[in-house]
Amino acid sequence: MSSSDLQSLFEPRGVAVIGASHSPNKIGYRVVDNIAKGGYRGGIFPVNPKGGRIAGIDVCTSIHSVIGDVDMAIITIPAVHVFDAVKNCAKRGIKHLVIITSGFSEIGNTAEEKKIVAFARNNGMRVLGPNIFGLYSSKVSLNATFGPKDIKPGNVSIITQSGAIGIAMVGKTKVENIGLSSIISVGNKSDLDETDLLTYLVDHDDTRMILMYIEGISGGHRLVETMRRAASRKPVVVIKSGRSARGAMAAASHTGSLAGADDVFDDIARQCGVIRAERIEDALNWCKFLAEAPQPKGDNAVIVTNGGGIGVLAADACEKYGVQLYDDADSMRETFAGEVPDFGSTKNPIDLTGAATESDYDGALGAALKSDRIDSVICLGCETAVFDAAKFSATVKKKYGEYRGKKPVVFSMFGGEEVEEGVGALRREGVPVFEDVYDAVSCLGSLYAYRRAALISQAEPDPVTIDLRTINRIVDDVHAQGRHFLLANEAREVMNAVGIAVPASCIARTIEDAIGAAKSIGYPVAMKILSKDIIHKSDVGGIALDLENETEIIEAFESIMYSCRRAMPRARIEGVEVAEMITGGVETIVGARRDASFGPIVMFGLGGVYVEVMKDVRFRAFPVSKPEALSMMSEIRSYPLLLGVRGEEKKDIDAAANAVLRVGTIIEECPAISDIEINPLTVFDQGEGIRAIDVRILLRQKGSER
Amino acid sequence: MSSSDLQSLFEPRGVAVIGASHSPNKIGYRVVDNIAKGGYRGGIFPVNPKGGRIAGIDVCTSIHSVIGDVDMAIITIPAVHVFDAVKNCAKRGIKHLVIITSGFSEIGNTAEEKKIVAFARNNGMRVLGPNIFGLYSSKVSLNATFGPKDIKPGNVSIITQSGAIGIAMVGKTKVENIGLSSIISVGNKSDLDETDLLTYLVDHDDTRMILMYIEGISGGHRLVETMRRAASRKPVVVIKSGRSARGAMAAASHTGSLAGADDVFDDIARQCGVIRAERIEDALNWCKFLAEAPQPKGDNAVIVTNGGGIGVLAADACEKYGVQLYDDADSMRETFAGEVPDFGSTKNPIDLTGAATESDYDGALGAALKSDRIDSVICLGCETAVFDAAKFSATVKKKYGEYRGKKPVVFSMFGGEEVEEGVGALRREGVPVFEDVYDAVSCLGSLYAYRRAALISQAEPDPVTIDLRTINRIVDDVHAQGRHFLLANEAREVMNAVGIAVPASCIARTIEDAIGAAKSIGYPVAMKILSKDIIHKSDVGGIALDLENETEIIEAFESIMYSCRRAMPRARIEGVEVAEMITGGVETIVGARRDASFGPIVMFGLGGVYVEVMKDVRFRAFPVSKPEALSMMSEIRSYPLLLGVRGEEKKDIDAAANAVLRVGTIIEECPAISDIEINPLTVFDQGEGIRAIDVRILLRQKGSER
Repeated sequence: MSSSDLQSLFEPRGVAVIGASHSPNKIGYRVVDNIAKGGYRGGIFPVNPKGGRIAGIDVCTSIHSVIGDVDMAIITIPAVHVFDAVKNCAKRGIKHLVIITSGFSEIGNTAEEKKIVAFARNNGMRVLGPNIFGLYSSKVSLNATFGPKDIKPGNVSIITQSGAIGIAMVGKTKVENIGLSSIISVGNKSDLDETDLLTYLVDHDDTRMILMYIEGISGGHRLVETMRRAASRKPVVVIKSGRSARGAMAAASHTGSLAGADDVFDDIARQCGVIRAERIEDALNWCKFLAEAPQPKGDNAVIVTNGGGIGVLAADACEKYGVQLYDDADSMRETFAGEVPDFGSTKNPIDLTGAATESDYDGALGAALKSDRIDSVICLGCETAVFDAAKFSATVKKKYGEYRGKKPVVFSMFGGEEVEEGVGALRREGVPVFEDVYDAVSCLGSLYAYRRAALISQAEPDPVTIDLRTINRIVDDVHAQGRHFLLANEAREVMNAVGIAVPASCIARTIEDAIGAAKSIGYPVAMKILSKDIIHKSDVGGIALDLENETEIIEAFESIMYSCRRAMPRARIEGVEVAEMITGGVETIVGARRDASFGPIVMFGLGGVYVEVMKDVRFRAFPVSKPEALSMMSEIRSYPLLLGVRGEEKKDIDAAANAVLRVGTIIEECPAISDIEINPLTVFDQGEGIRAIDVRILLRQKGSER
Repeated sequence: MSSSDLQSLFEPRGVAVIGASHSPNKIGYRVVDNIAKGGYRGGIFPVNPKGGRIAGIDVCTSIHSVIGDVDMAIITIPAVHVFDAVKNCAKRGIKHLVIITSGFSEIGNTAEEKKIVAFARNNGMRVLGPNIFGLYSSKVSLNATFGPKDIKPGNVSIITQSGAIGIAMVGKTKVENIGLSSIISVGNKSDLDETDLLTYLVDHDDTRMILMYIEGISGGHRLVETMRRAASRKPVVVIKSGRSARGAMAAASHTGSLAGADDVFDDIARQCGVIRAERIEDALNWCKFLAEAPQPKGDNAVIVTNGGGIGVLAADACEKYGVQLYDDADSMRETFAGEVPDFGSTKNPIDLTGAATESDYDGALGAALKSDRIDSVICLGCETAVFDAAKFSATVKKKYGEYRGKKPVVFSMFGGEEVEEGVGALRREGVPVFEDVYDAVSCLGSLYAYRRAALISQAEPDPVTIDLRTINRIVDDVHAQGRHFLLANEAREVMNAVGIAVPASCIARTIEDAIGAAKSIGYPVAMKILSKDIIHKSDVGGIALDLENETEIIEAFESIMYSCRRAMPRARIEGVEVAEMITGGVETIVGARRDASFGPIVMFGLGGVYVEVMKDVRFRAFPVSKPEALSMMSEIRSYPLLLGVRGEEKKDIDAAANAVLRVGTIIEECPAISDIEINPLTVFDQGEGIRAIDVRILLRQKGSER
């Protein structure tokens, strides 16, 4: 869908309200009233068979009697009547149905919802909702909601899945003096979803930043791509609720079950450059700050404080929120010499001492803001015996006024009543000041998070060529046998088809064969009995490891045959498998799957027995570029094992990254395959490659949504 | 020190202010004025050679001219004059010196501070400070600070290391309507420190809960014991700043360097039952709530909400703050049937839908508060089209009034201006209501954290008998050789002396010796060349592993001798070491050290090569009981490895716990030993014990503070 399709949702020429009500308590009245009082610049057409006037506007008795351009119908009538109304809208040439009415899929009434959407799409209409509180668009001053009036226009757009949180956020933004360019409630997302809206808002000139409240995600790959594109253009803050365990996906493979869906979302949000907030309060603070603040030119932040205690707390907060404190002592001594009183400190945090006056602040804060070597400033005021909240506020206001567009700066003031009043007054002036230092620093942290996001390489994915024909042939064979998983040898064939090395192995029926096999593979080798009748090979003496020469091959072959025949006289024995012996290396896990929320995703982590215990894994939406795969790998806690600890060689990280790209490509190009997991994928020293030791491949079950 | 010694600090019969000033801007004036206006019930004696009246009180020209009982001298004169004043105080029989003056150890003037304290202690006086803002004690209405007036009396005591944060907190508690029983600034802690004050406050009837702001800790074992005793009596909330990397300890062993001091503090705070806050704002919210709320009878929390969105956010917050949501669906259906409107939910969170009215809240909230099966309640109101903040507030106020002493309940209201006003009004009434659901849930979480703390077993430490004489003999030998570390064989001897098993080994000079040794140790064995001249044994073929019988012993002995002689013809070879071959088991790390802040501490974690990489370790202050050692062990992420993963046997956790108790006992009983680290300590299957494979023991360097 091109984004221009949605322009008439944000800028309709006229809106009809189907279900307009004469009763001021009804939603159908409030919507008309909000549109009228909101100063909407297009035609307003309340529709009600009874006619009359609602909120001072003439009522049309039906949608057909509407005279004039009308692009949008807002529907507030009961669910059972909605489909008929939608049919009438189609005849009237409506482009957008905004269905506020609830009582559809959210209570199990899914069929009716699907019917409405199918009809609408077939007739060139798009559906927002149902089960929403409406939408607001500042461009045409359209408040088509039953929420608060007097929405403050501005440059923040909000997309919300929860209607109640949307209404409350409108109220809260008013209190916090945050201006909106739009707020859209997506409700059941029967047709238009957050991805569609985000796509439009990326190019929306009036929107400087985007806030999303999400509960469930269904956009798949398209959402990932859109989030990434959006975040490269403007800050995107996301509150995703449902972090807790109940939200975790049940899935057949580790790639699904090792982490809850929330960990996957966390990783993918970071991959896309989207900033995640936990609390609504933080999200709104960040939005207000991000919509105003200039970009920092570099990482060097400086704290200016009159209290050692709050200085240390702020330094702690900087570590928590990813703000880097400038630590060039010489440069700071130079910058702040003469600005810091006796017993103060020119080290970061710059300590003006409890005796600091407004002129000390004026000097030190001014020096920090002026310095080319300092990129952002955190200025703190703690109530002391001599602290004057009013004078501090005046200094803050003056300095913020001078530098607000030039350098990011946040403030915190902590203390009693006068301080609280001072904070309130400054906030009303638009100064980013908070009572708790953590809130101030978290705002600056959100700005740096956005800066890092903007620096994320938008490198094109690295395409990998795989032998799709072979894979499809194997999959067809497996399907033909009614299986949904691949046998070990089939999985090895798939690995061969994509160029992921597996341990070399040969089948040998005689001692001579075995000797020849070992010679071609290279010593040491392992040997296993080959028999469909013997499942637990080691229990019957069917395995020999670490065979180093011809003599040991002969001994092992004879011993295996003897033991197996004695233990299971009736087993049909086809010979032995002679395989490369794998020793050393780091055991990792590499996985890929088709995720219901994000489309193809890849996973990398610490493998072997530690995988379930340490849950040391990371995720990315696929496709990814090679640098991105490497960056995912570097995020696992046990990454130092790959870099080489205790004097060990660095491992072949590059080969492992290639394996990640290859399993991702399989999932992307073979819709029949749902899950791949290699555990362990043993990574040898640099230049010596990898081996996929154990490979599990699952096929999509027919009728499965995944 | 018995706590009664400090009674006269909190309840002095009279106070002198040495440095009382006629100038209202001076600290020496403000303190007198605050004491006078604060309504102090004892004698007030401003001391100033000039005489006259200050803040309406007659001035004494010297401390000697004070007539009446005087237990405390508050000193505000410049640092250079303090020692003379202290000498005069000694003559006058003063018990407590409250030295507000700064300019001592905090700026390097340590000698003067030490001189003052030594003199004071020798003359029966205790010192609070220097470099403080004073103290407040509600019992005698004494506001001996230069901070705000009109401190609200109540039942929260605050101990603060930062004067500025203390002053600001006084202001903030006034705004938040939090009553104080005392606030004490400890500053440089030259004599009295947080441990002394905490000791007193444990038995202080007026104090229902204690808030501490700490930067550095020096109390050692005494602090740990006091925190534990305090937390078993009343809630103790601690803000410890300096989390960031700069605060990390530099130490010789992993036990010190594996985690920053902050991780150690985190573990020990939990061990003591102390509740840790990151932000001052949270700490104050919790204090206010904890000082009022009744204890929950059980874990079952229920959320009542009118919005699905904030319900999910609250459920997320519950997981974050350790609040358990009740999930007996039948019981809840029974409790809430008839109270929840159509389309609502009787599952937790109880959803009253966006159409909820105050009577729905009244019913559902009432049902939750009344139910014997529900132990605590989180009630949320989100602004919707029909939400009425005033009516919701009235319901909240009524229900809170009925149940405030009976069942813990917290509230959140989120939305626009009316909601904000409603929250403010309810807070002024003392209702625990917050705008953000996370703040509400975090309060309830602090109550549950305190409940869990109260449930911590106060089990006596399990004493371990060790052969101290042998250990001291070894240590003396090492000292005699001028070393500060033990050699491997010395460390093994120490292990033997405390009953921690090490791999069995014998020295063999001949093949016959080796065969005999292997027989007595039991096959398989390992064999290593024994020569002071051969450091890198494996490089010269000096090691053979996994020897399974006499033939292999003979072959290996000959091969080792041959290889070593050929590679290093001049090496003096004493024979070989034959040792038990260790295979299988889980590699853990066990450590103990004398910590500058906490005294003896023990550590347990995942060992081997993973130790530096995964940093999967936990700490406890020593001594600990066996159950506490086991609880520490169960907190490591890789604990499932000890429980047995993938069908493996459970490991000998009990034997590992005994090893923890034993290394802790060594550190406790041998002051000469500073660090012990066993890595790996291999833990075998249950009943099969442990082996300390590699043991490092360091001695305290002479003159070291540790």
